[in-house]
Amino acid sequence: MAKQLLGREVAEALEEDSYRRSAALRRLGIAPRLALVRCGEGEDDIAYEKSILRQAARGGVETECHLLPETASPEELKKLLSSISGEAKVHGCLVFRPLPGKLAAEQREICNALLPEKDVDGSTAASVAAVYTGAGAGFPPCTAQACLEMLDYYGIECRGKSVAIIGRSLVVGRPLALLLTARDATVTLCHSRTVNLGDICRRADLIVCAAAKPGLITGDMVSPGQTVLDVSMNFLPELENADGSLGGFVGDTVYEEVEKTVEYISPVPGGLGLVTSAVLIKHVVIAAERSLK
Amino acid sequence: MAKQLLGREVAEALEEDSYRRSAALRRLGIAPRLALVRCGEGEDDIAYEKSILRQAARGGVETECHLLPETASPEELKKLLSSISGEAKVHGCLVFRPLPGKLAAEQREICNALLPEKDVDGSTAASVAAVYTGAGAGFPPCTAQACLEMLDYYGIECRGKSVAIIGRSLVVGRPLALLLTARDATVTLCHSRTVNLGDICRRADLIVCAAAKPGLITGDMVSPGQTVLDVSMNFLPELENADGSLGGFVGDTVYEEVEKTVEYISPVPGGLGLVTSAVLIKHVVIAAERSLK
Repeated sequence: MAKQLLGREVAEALEEDSYRRSAALRRLGIAPRLALVRCGEGEDDIAYEKSILRQAARGGVETECHLLPETASPEELKKLLSSISGEAKVHGCLVFRPLPGKLAAEQREICNALLPEKDVDGSTAASVAAVYTGAGAGFPPCTAQACLEMLDYYGIECRGKSVAIIGRSLVVGRPLALLLTARDATVTLCHSRTVNLGDICRRADLIVCAAAKPGLITGDMVSPGQTVLDVSMNFLPELENADGSLGGFVGDTVYEEVEKTVEYISPVPGGLGLVTSAVLIKHVVIAAERSLK
Repeated sequence: MAKQLLGREVAEALEEDSYRRSAALRRLGIAPRLALVRCGEGEDDIAYEKSILRQAARGGVETECHLLPETASPEELKKLLSSISGEAKVHGCLVFRPLPGKLAAEQREICNALLPEKDVDGSTAASVAAVYTGAGAGFPPCTAQACLEMLDYYGIECRGKSVAIIGRSLVVGRPLALLLTARDATVTLCHSRTVNLGDICRRADLIVCAAAKPGLITGDMVSPGQTVLDVSMNFLPELENADGSLGGFVGDTVYEEVEKTVEYISPVPGGLGLVTSAVLIKHVVIAAERSLK
């Protein structure tokens, strides 16, 4: 039976560190501050916003919430982001993505209105370039960074290890492939067109599941000694909970099969989801520290 | 004995295509034009410049050469790049890299002075983001694109294939990993810290060598049916040529061993090196076409 990699433990360690560093900044007259920008009333956005506000409080980070209607124009949103970028007292800014409605088509260009130094979720072109080159201002997407934080917290080494990442998204797969390569791991980036996914997974030291496909990784696709990070949060309405209620989240792994074989596994829920917003707050604190220089 | 993938054939096809498209642009009153910016008198830069000028003539592309001393300040170089970016008659610009002397440390920031639309060798942050996201203005680095052109010319399919790329540089390994992933290949990005390189290579359908290590890929590391693209140009002063003279280029493969087993192989010299400057000219023509819109 595998050892569970618990998001709560990692998040708490990150919160404590952020709180300590925020307090040090406050003594220097700087209050780390995060601006949240939400367009419309999407349920997922509201849930994530609530979780960020709680996490910010635990990390000693001030917050301000900006709300635009779903019908806002790209220009309005860009104007808001430029104005936030110009605010000296704001150190980080998160725009809830994907943007709704007609804003979605121009999301990338809109996000570029944000200063990379304040782009704490890696949404601008400059942040992308920073992850890719390993130099320059900007932060990686929080979910990708959350995977590194979890490995670090549990002392799981990447250097010289082989990694299978499943899913080539811009928020997990692609940035994490580059981040792990920079840490001297050998990464195979898999996706829906990958042939022999089972072979690739069985040979890896670390498997990162970020395909958003429940049931994708079965017991026969893993090997003893492996670490499995399951990043996906798939909502299954028919899932029966312990209390008899219906509806819940699962990852991409068939957990009860996989955990019999591997050494470490992050559960869903209770895994990386909890770490992501703690990483966001950490990024705000780092941005505030950098603003001192 | 493997079939050779000949750079000359690919380059000629690219040249013809560029020439035809340049002629069409000229009929619309637009002469595709490339600005070359060289700092100092580096031998490699001068050799590459000469080859580009020849290639530009074959592709129907006008050129202008700008020369700054090696002692130029970053500000001078940035001012020049901004001024070239503002020139409506120039469609593409190449800065010879790596920059010499004290300019090297600020290379990335200097290159960002170039408009991404004119950055025909993928040196700006915006071009990096375009390769990474698959959207936006900018071109991939010419050497990475040259690999795709060679595969296309010889009808070698990438979709669903497994690829081992050896070398994680910003001009080949990393961009090519993303470009091939976007084409539905499953890419393993290997480097100097990779364990079991032989196993990874033997299992791949396509091997791309870009490690700049002569002798790295030996006969026992390849399998029948594979394609090998050898991007590296390693100069060996002790190499004896057919005419008895000394000094020449080799790739990363032990050619005479590898070509016995694999199906296709690009030789060094005579392989991808010849394609790279043809790709540069193609990028200038595309930039000129885009300027019409």
